[in-house]
Amino acid sequence: MKRVRLTVAYDGTNYHGWQLQDNGVTIEEELNRCLTELLGAPVAVIGASRTDSGVHALGNVAVFDTDSPIPAEKFSYALNQRLPEDIRIQKSEEVAGDWHPRRCASRKTYEYRIYRGEFPMPVKRLYSYHTYRGLDVQNMRRAAGCLEGEHDFRSFCQTGAQVESTVRTIFSAEVEEQGADLVIRVCGSGFLYNMVRIIAGTLLEVGMGKRTPESMEQVLAARERGAAGPTAPACGLTLMKYEFL
Amino acid sequence: MKRVRLTVAYDGTNYHGWQLQDNGVTIEEELNRCLTELLGAPVAVIGASRTDSGVHALGNVAVFDTDSPIPAEKFSYALNQRLPEDIRIQKSEEVAGDWHPRRCASRKTYEYRIYRGEFPMPVKRLYSYHTYRGLDVQNMRRAAGCLEGEHDFRSFCQTGAQVESTVRTIFSAEVEEQGADLVIRVCGSGFLYNMVRIIAGTLLEVGMGKRTPESMEQVLAARERGAAGPTAPACGLTLMKYEFL
Repeated sequence: MKRVRLTVAYDGTNYHGWQLQDNGVTIEEELNRCLTELLGAPVAVIGASRTDSGVHALGNVAVFDTDSPIPAEKFSYALNQRLPEDIRIQKSEEVAGDWHPRRCASRKTYEYRIYRGEFPMPVKRLYSYHTYRGLDVQNMRRAAGCLEGEHDFRSFCQTGAQVESTVRTIFSAEVEEQGADLVIRVCGSGFLYNMVRIIAGTLLEVGMGKRTPESMEQVLAARERGAAGPTAPACGLTLMKYEFL
Repeated sequence: MKRVRLTVAYDGTNYHGWQLQDNGVTIEEELNRCLTELLGAPVAVIGASRTDSGVHALGNVAVFDTDSPIPAEKFSYALNQRLPEDIRIQKSEEVAGDWHPRRCASRKTYEYRIYRGEFPMPVKRLYSYHTYRGLDVQNMRRAAGCLEGEHDFRSFCQTGAQVESTVRTIFSAEVEEQGADLVIRVCGSGFLYNMVRIIAGTLLEVGMGKRTPESMEQVLAARERGAAGPTAPACGLTLMKYEFL
């Protein structure tokens, strides 16, 4: 028996998120289906990040156990022949039998992409959020800086989420201009439900002048969802990278 | 009566190209439909570049005549409310009544995007061509340089195309690395049918070592389609910009 780790990239547009659902096709379901077909026995992967409906990933992570003679590094090729074209394994490799993607120290990098044009740009519509409003990038940067470090991020957690602790560490929160695009890049030890999208929605309000950069301290201190801004649309969010420490 | 010029952006994935077709929905058809609905009388636009099925545009151009009291610059807003989300007018403005988008000196810029990764990347699949083959970028640049200037581009024209002359001027042909992407950017006075995709397909063969950079001179001199490389897939091509001189 060996444990195989998959690095999984997907376009989340047509999926109801990562996690198995009754009411729509998910990434986890497609991986399980293709692995089960390939191995001829039921397989259920364990995923690292349970991304929401419509969220994209360049490198989410999943593991499964198998006693198949197929070498671990060949699963990428075998699975990519069966998966739909909006899901592609980027790497497959063997890991220790007790390695669990949600029970080890890791660093996740998300990007939230905003397109600033007078009108929406069709080729960008699936992977960014469009706003025609002017955004004060310097203020957004200052506000983002307030989030760095270890904080109780309860204000940035969708209500109803069941977690033991809402304390997380953000290693860096940057706002980068890439032509007409503005990219919010957040790197952290872990994220609460909808956390990056709520951070993006709050930074957008700062950019529009609805909040001051300094008010981020009060949002953090309030420890309630209502203190932060709206949850920004899913399409702008991409899980870029998962690093295990 | 006034003539209105539209700058049109679209995601070509779900269209059978620009020009009206019997067997599929086209960009031209959608523009005519929305203008006809808006103005309550049949409207037929005249397009600048008749892009192929699957090709994208940030700024194609079309004109139409109307005696509507709607100000020319408001058509962008009115049309965008009716158009499907994969077509968006970026600008609308009045031009001289005899201005014709295909009968005036212009400069068109196309980009052909290649993604170089071991496996396809889902979020890039609609807007780039994937190859896992190593590409010699320096050789591709040298080959691209041979295309600059005025030449008979018959070798880079799909056979069957009916044109009076196959002589065109390419102002610049660049190959730019953008991380894992390689962008072939061609700017010219005009392009023959499939010309940029055949240039991309030929430069890809140079990159793979199947042709030398110097062989581009022979390809040009041959003046027959068979001398050039294959037509690269449509999804990698985007009409970036149309400038009228």
